[in-house]
Amino acid sequence: MNSIEEQMATVVNLCKRRGFVFQSADIYGGFRSAYDFGPVGVLMLRNVKQAWWHSMVQLREDVVGLDAAILSPPAVWEASGHLRSFSDPLVDCRKCKTRHREDHLKDPNRCPSCGTAGELTEAREFNLMFKTYAGPVAEDGAEVYLRPETAQGMFMNYNLVMGAARKRPPFGIAQIGKSFRNEITPGNFIFRTREFEQMEMEYFVPPDEATKWYEYWLQERLDWYKDLGIPSEMLRLRAHEADELSHYSSQTADVEFLYPWGWGELEGIANRGDYDLTAHAAHSGARLEYQGEDVSYVPHVIEPAAGATRAMLAFLLAAYDEEEVRGEKRTVLRLDPRLAPYQVAVLPLSRKEPLTSTAREVATSLRPYFMVDYDETQSIGRRYRRQDELGTPFCVTVDFETADDNSVTVRERDEMSQKRIPIPEVCDFLRSCM
Amino acid sequence: MNSIEEQMATVVNLCKRRGFVFQSADIYGGFRSAYDFGPVGVLMLRNVKQAWWHSMVQLREDVVGLDAAILSPPAVWEASGHLRSFSDPLVDCRKCKTRHREDHLKDPNRCPSCGTAGELTEAREFNLMFKTYAGPVAEDGAEVYLRPETAQGMFMNYNLVMGAARKRPPFGIAQIGKSFRNEITPGNFIFRTREFEQMEMEYFVPPDEATKWYEYWLQERLDWYKDLGIPSEMLRLRAHEADELSHYSSQTADVEFLYPWGWGELEGIANRGDYDLTAHAAHSGARLEYQGEDVSYVPHVIEPAAGATRAMLAFLLAAYDEEEVRGEKRTVLRLDPRLAPYQVAVLPLSRKEPLTSTAREVATSLRPYFMVDYDETQSIGRRYRRQDELGTPFCVTVDFETADDNSVTVRERDEMSQKRIPIPEVCDFLRSCM
Repeated sequence: MNSIEEQMATVVNLCKRRGFVFQSADIYGGFRSAYDFGPVGVLMLRNVKQAWWHSMVQLREDVVGLDAAILSPPAVWEASGHLRSFSDPLVDCRKCKTRHREDHLKDPNRCPSCGTAGELTEAREFNLMFKTYAGPVAEDGAEVYLRPETAQGMFMNYNLVMGAARKRPPFGIAQIGKSFRNEITPGNFIFRTREFEQMEMEYFVPPDEATKWYEYWLQERLDWYKDLGIPSEMLRLRAHEADELSHYSSQTADVEFLYPWGWGELEGIANRGDYDLTAHAAHSGARLEYQGEDVSYVPHVIEPAAGATRAMLAFLLAAYDEEEVRGEKRTVLRLDPRLAPYQVAVLPLSRKEPLTSTAREVATSLRPYFMVDYDETQSIGRRYRRQDELGTPFCVTVDFETADDNSVTVRERDEMSQKRIPIPEVCDFLRSCM
Repeated sequence: MNSIEEQMATVVNLCKRRGFVFQSADIYGGFRSAYDFGPVGVLMLRNVKQAWWHSMVQLREDVVGLDAAILSPPAVWEASGHLRSFSDPLVDCRKCKTRHREDHLKDPNRCPSCGTAGELTEAREFNLMFKTYAGPVAEDGAEVYLRPETAQGMFMNYNLVMGAARKRPPFGIAQIGKSFRNEITPGNFIFRTREFEQMEMEYFVPPDEATKWYEYWLQERLDWYKDLGIPSEMLRLRAHEADELSHYSSQTADVEFLYPWGWGELEGIANRGDYDLTAHAAHSGARLEYQGEDVSYVPHVIEPAAGATRAMLAFLLAAYDEEEVRGEKRTVLRLDPRLAPYQVAVLPLSRKEPLTSTAREVATSLRPYFMVDYDETQSIGRRYRRQDELGTPFCVTVDFETADDNSVTVRERDEMSQKRIPIPEVCDFLRSCM
């Protein structure tokens, strides 16, 4: 592959053409802050989130789930520090009226748009939270914020969850959900968007175990991406320098992915100490601690915070492959079957009876267990190529011999190997392959 | 059971105590507009949404999914009619400064708060959409709205989806996601909240098939609730009167549920005609129609629009039961296993070895296939009661004989019947019961 721009354009184009990701409000010229996930994109995004939930909640005795509200009152963000500290410094150019992030200026004196020197204003802090108003009148002081992270939901519900779920440290609360940040410079496709989906877990531990668990979660989270098919050489851990740390964190490392434009954040693992529980206790008056039989302490918190949409982009980029097959270029997404939008495509070789009826019967019999695509249009070669571009691991083809031998051809995506399987055994065969 | 208030209070209390639903921002005195779903609530809500997705997308050849953005620019809501028509008429009392919905006034002249006559202002239309601003400055005219329904995402992406998924009418686009309405009077627990989750499907049909498909979806959707355990006598279909119809609809019926306070909406099924595609085509200049080999038309749309949170409330209310067992009250949620937060609880009879180790091994072996709760606290009787209140269909108990016979006792929730099962057969046995 070629330049960074070409690499990204290739994947972005595939995403639009095949129905993974569309620019939001496309018919109105597009809305830059957000994307829509199309018919296969929504399936893949669901699979990414399900793989996270399965690993972080379902398989674990020590983690429970939560689904907290997006809208939240100012008291929450005063306590969390976001009203005070979650901001970027912006300067205006008096000459051309454009606005820029001060910390991104190459020359602190010169406007990057019109090039005039000496016309930039002093920086003002611009808060990244979206504000709106709940209730019938804006003047009522009823302002609310769209959460910029899901984490505060876990801290606010700490007592209620611990009581209802009868957990004690070390234990975690996990949440998947939308967050919103009014980024000055969204970009790189679905890498940085104003509306995005997070997969966060707050793991509450005895203070003297914080470092141990921080190390544990670094490794766990790195392994999760590897297990789902991202090659080791496209992943690395990078510890934050002291001046990079967020206001709440004493220790943070990023799981980084090798995007076409270089290494970038995939997930942050932070040691938040007792910052959040202490802050919410002070602001709310609630006692947010753990009281055991003969111990009492404010737990420290280790937070693995991943982006679902960003993870999906990484899985797509890592899976994208081109190869030459009999003189023609084949594009294939080598996605793990757990992440692929469809696990199976059912294809009648021709749009003739009884092939289509039989193919539909096979599709119907597989649907309770797999996401199944059924396609009877175009030549079989073009349909295989389409499924390759969707990352579908198996194609089941009903052909003219099926009526005689009650069997179908199962084609595997990566090797393009084919195997003849009796129809009654297809479901079990596919299960055994995934 | 007794009064409406008591019935609701009983369920609301259970929801908080057991971790289904918490008032949002509880430690700050609660945030009226929204609720948080706790450790078991999030599991049940996920199950409700998964049951819908399975029935509406996975099992069907003619429906594909979508996950569109919540933030959307004004052009969308101008076209949809929401900026113009999605409002309630409000009046102010000049005397006591309170604000009220004009259409809810019992006496159009008298303030319902202070009782003064003749001091109510003329009604003003109050739009129910939440507005915020994207980009660095509010003054930029960069206002955006939180979607009040997911449906517009399907209409805007109609061409892109039809192209990528190669569908033609009749076909549907389905979406699950959050919507936001600045309701003047939220209430009845999670029945009417400002932030809520929808499960909507837009089904595009040839114009002359609209009525047929409208009838089809009425029946399908009613059956879905019955199949998941709501008794027929708590469900009914009610067609809207002409003056109830939304601005886009020519025909609407509600699936209604018998809430403690009476019949209320569970889901609306609307015949939206060609209103939306025509409006978006006119506003955007895009051609939103179907062009077949020798036909061309703007499809009509049948929309089954359900509330996920509202459906969860109905399933909880319908499942709630109290009975007397050996002189004591037993509270039990008779939830369908597909909806229950946990399918299995694993309980060692005593907190002694080797019972706890064996119980943990059994739990670990079941976790890949079921949501499993593990509980070793308190007496076995209290733990059974706790699982009954969570709606867990099966409890697996490891007792003192387990070490000898390598078997466990499986207790069924509704009949409280018990059966001895060898450990290696437990997983298959549980699967066969669900």
